[in-house]
Amino acid sequence: MNFKNTEIEYDDDLKPIDMQPLFYPKTMAVIGVSQNKIGGIKYVIANDVSGYMQAGGKVYPINPKYKELYGYKVYPSLFDPEVPNIDLAIIAVPAAAVPDVVRDCGKKRVKFAVIFSSGFAESGNFDLQKKLEDAIEEAKRYTRFIGPNCLGINNPYSHVSYYPGMASAPGNVSYVSMSGGNTGRLTTWLVTQGMGINNAVSIGNSIDLTATDFINYFREDPKTKVIALYLESVPNGRKFMKALKAATLKKPVVLWKGGQTEVGQKATVSHTGGLAGSYEIWKSMAYQTGSFLADYFEMFADFVTCLSLDYYLPNDENVAILVCGGGISVEYADMCIKAGLKVPELSKETQNKLAEVFPSVNVSFRNPLDLGEYGYVPHYFDKALRIVAKDPNISSILYVREAERFILFQDVIGIPNMDQLTIKLLIESSKIIKKPLFCSMSPNGQELEHYEPRFNFKVAMLKNNLAVVDLVPHACELIKQMVRYKRYLDAHKNNSSKY
Amino acid sequence: MNFKNTEIEYDDDLKPIDMQPLFYPKTMAVIGVSQNKIGGIKYVIANDVSGYMQAGGKVYPINPKYKELYGYKVYPSLFDPEVPNIDLAIIAVPAAAVPDVVRDCGKKRVKFAVIFSSGFAESGNFDLQKKLEDAIEEAKRYTRFIGPNCLGINNPYSHVSYYPGMASAPGNVSYVSMSGGNTGRLTTWLVTQGMGINNAVSIGNSIDLTATDFINYFREDPKTKVIALYLESVPNGRKFMKALKAATLKKPVVLWKGGQTEVGQKATVSHTGGLAGSYEIWKSMAYQTGSFLADYFEMFADFVTCLSLDYYLPNDENVAILVCGGGISVEYADMCIKAGLKVPELSKETQNKLAEVFPSVNVSFRNPLDLGEYGYVPHYFDKALRIVAKDPNISSILYVREAERFILFQDVIGIPNMDQLTIKLLIESSKIIKKPLFCSMSPNGQELEHYEPRFNFKVAMLKNNLAVVDLVPHACELIKQMVRYKRYLDAHKNNSSKY
Repeated sequence: MNFKNTEIEYDDDLKPIDMQPLFYPKTMAVIGVSQNKIGGIKYVIANDVSGYMQAGGKVYPINPKYKELYGYKVYPSLFDPEVPNIDLAIIAVPAAAVPDVVRDCGKKRVKFAVIFSSGFAESGNFDLQKKLEDAIEEAKRYTRFIGPNCLGINNPYSHVSYYPGMASAPGNVSYVSMSGGNTGRLTTWLVTQGMGINNAVSIGNSIDLTATDFINYFREDPKTKVIALYLESVPNGRKFMKALKAATLKKPVVLWKGGQTEVGQKATVSHTGGLAGSYEIWKSMAYQTGSFLADYFEMFADFVTCLSLDYYLPNDENVAILVCGGGISVEYADMCIKAGLKVPELSKETQNKLAEVFPSVNVSFRNPLDLGEYGYVPHYFDKALRIVAKDPNISSILYVREAERFILFQDVIGIPNMDQLTIKLLIESSKIIKKPLFCSMSPNGQELEHYEPRFNFKVAMLKNNLAVVDLVPHACELIKQMVRYKRYLDAHKNNSSKY
Repeated sequence: MNFKNTEIEYDDDLKPIDMQPLFYPKTMAVIGVSQNKIGGIKYVIANDVSGYMQAGGKVYPINPKYKELYGYKVYPSLFDPEVPNIDLAIIAVPAAAVPDVVRDCGKKRVKFAVIFSSGFAESGNFDLQKKLEDAIEEAKRYTRFIGPNCLGINNPYSHVSYYPGMASAPGNVSYVSMSGGNTGRLTTWLVTQGMGINNAVSIGNSIDLTATDFINYFREDPKTKVIALYLESVPNGRKFMKALKAATLKKPVVLWKGGQTEVGQKATVSHTGGLAGSYEIWKSMAYQTGSFLADYFEMFADFVTCLSLDYYLPNDENVAILVCGGGISVEYADMCIKAGLKVPELSKETQNKLAEVFPSVNVSFRNPLDLGEYGYVPHYFDKALRIVAKDPNISSILYVREAERFILFQDVIGIPNMDQLTIKLLIESSKIIKKPLFCSMSPNGQELEHYEPRFNFKVAMLKNNLAVVDLVPHACELIKQMVRYKRYLDAHKNNSSKY
């Protein structure tokens, strides 16, 4: 999907803050380093092993108690003459000391600060929360703050990192998360499959800069193709909705809302301290703003992965299902229909064309399609794919390629490198088909010998912009939401240019 | 869960057929072998490579056109003097010839026959279907038939196999499936994770022997711990329900119904030819018979895997969630509540005991529990598990162990072999706890180096009867259905002894 540049006049709510010094800082200060390896010092180590320092970035560890820690020179104060202007400060001091350090950041004219420390509203310390809010209110004229109770920035381009050895590789996903753990989960998922991130930002309780600010920034960021959000609450629902509405006209936004139930919401209070609000309201907000909505991590990951590729949006709910096997054809049809999709019977013309290619034993061409044993042969499958895609009743295609069985098939069918051949044919066909295609690998075997070909196939597919989903119900839900997004864009693109 | 022997008087509907000659045949005939490797000859090869022949089983390939095929001696006819009494025949002739071969089987007093051939009701050939039904009606006095349009038997004990190289290993799952593909999927899933099957039976259109007959047999079979069913339709709903009711009093039955939607049902017609009936009726039947109900393959596989272990049934919906991380605690709470479970706040006593073990930074003990960084340490986690299990409000526990991070933790925490230590502690604790425990591995990393430790951990866990689920929503649904099953058993065990 290529989005045309829609001319929008942005009011102040939507104007992006210049976050260049946050994502590409020339200088960093880490305030509150100590011998405790899970304290501030881990930021120093993280930005050493990440390559940030090697690329010329300067890190100034700060604590008056130390001259040196783990081989790094430590400075007594942010105001030490040797400490230059600071683009990004990490605040890693005990909670009670944070408000003063926040004020110091303002005085020093630090551009951005990540408050790693926790122990505020999320721990029931409302007095301290109030003191922190007051300090931020004073300082934010000069310094903008991320957190508290967060990890900060993971940027593979500038090599800024929040954890030693955290997965990071260049990509086009910009991710904003109120959970540090969930920040790492999606990043690791993407990076270890050959994908990557443009930015992953753990924002924690987000007193000053909120998800809204990051959405506005990533909306205009040409390196961001999809915006992924894990949020538990937002401080200003109206501004947040405006930001979503403006962003989704330019790129897809995938939201995973933590606290979809009353118990989940209670848990968010002790996690990030915000008031979550009813999930019904969030759902309705997602619909009204053209946002994607995922229920849990694995679904979220499948959505973000597919939307970070080049893709087409389906015109409607009509899906063709191409598999080899009667049982799986029934299963995928059930999953599509349960998700609210349609699996219409193919036209007689399409069915006749398929019958010319495939022997008539143990096959079904009506939809779902059971291509039988011949469907395993790449060239036969490719023919079927092209024939089905031409059917005017079909808007997207869900199909199976069992990479774990390629080696077996290679022997039986006598075609070497079935994985590469399959991908080659899919690349060529997808250029002609111009409809969304989703591959399931229908995994059964769990041993390394089964996993490895699946993994290699998936990585190669994704690298070539061919969508693969790990669980078919996720594909069905994604197709349904892509249709909704298409309709949203059709309705809003030419409608309004003012927000 | 140990099931007491409930004394039940069985009427004729529930009397099991003696299937010993089917599952442990001394002699097999394969009728209709040819050079076509995907035809009947594959049964001959399958039972050679499976070890059936090596263990003394005799296979008689039959076709008057050949004297020998692929090194196997071929006999001209079932009635050839060299062909002895046959326990199990495979019928792999063209559809039109099947009725005559069926009659031949009866004449020869073959005990069981698998009709591999397809091309009957499922292909719209209703005349031929009628002829086949008539032939079966005549012959079934002597021979009982499985199929048509099926694969037959996979038994790791007798080594009977339906496909060369099909996964097979001894276990306690007895599986009956109307889809050949789905038969292989679950079997492969189990076997490649160190589990196994007692029997996997692909029954196809099941004109003579139906799922009901197999349920009645496996109910009384001491080697069957759980009965797994993939069904699209049943010919006699009343008898089927009776069979389920009788079986679930002795062991859990997990049903995956293909054709849950109108389109799925249509697809079942061209797959196995039966009339599927509304899913609402199937659901209500599952509730009324104490059966488990899974929606799709991965859920089915997780259910069957966990129910094939030794386990306790939860008393009620109250679940404790033990994780390390705020975001994942919110997620799992959301998933539990959405599935209809409860995540009650732990008692003050439990919370106080946990506070004695864990430092108070970034943790939450109310439920869901976020154990923070210390929760990664096996001994700390184990203490938490035992404390939480004692809480009278808690009936089952859902927890996370991230095997992919063990190697990293080993270095940081300084504990070698974290996987083995974790399992050792879990084995000891689970003996004391006596409540159902479900482990999620919260997979993120996808590379082999991440997959391998997860896979090894899962295999070792399952081997030690420790339940692991691949997707948390499946665990939530399983717990809910286990509660339902517990209540069903409590209500019915002493109620009625006559069916």
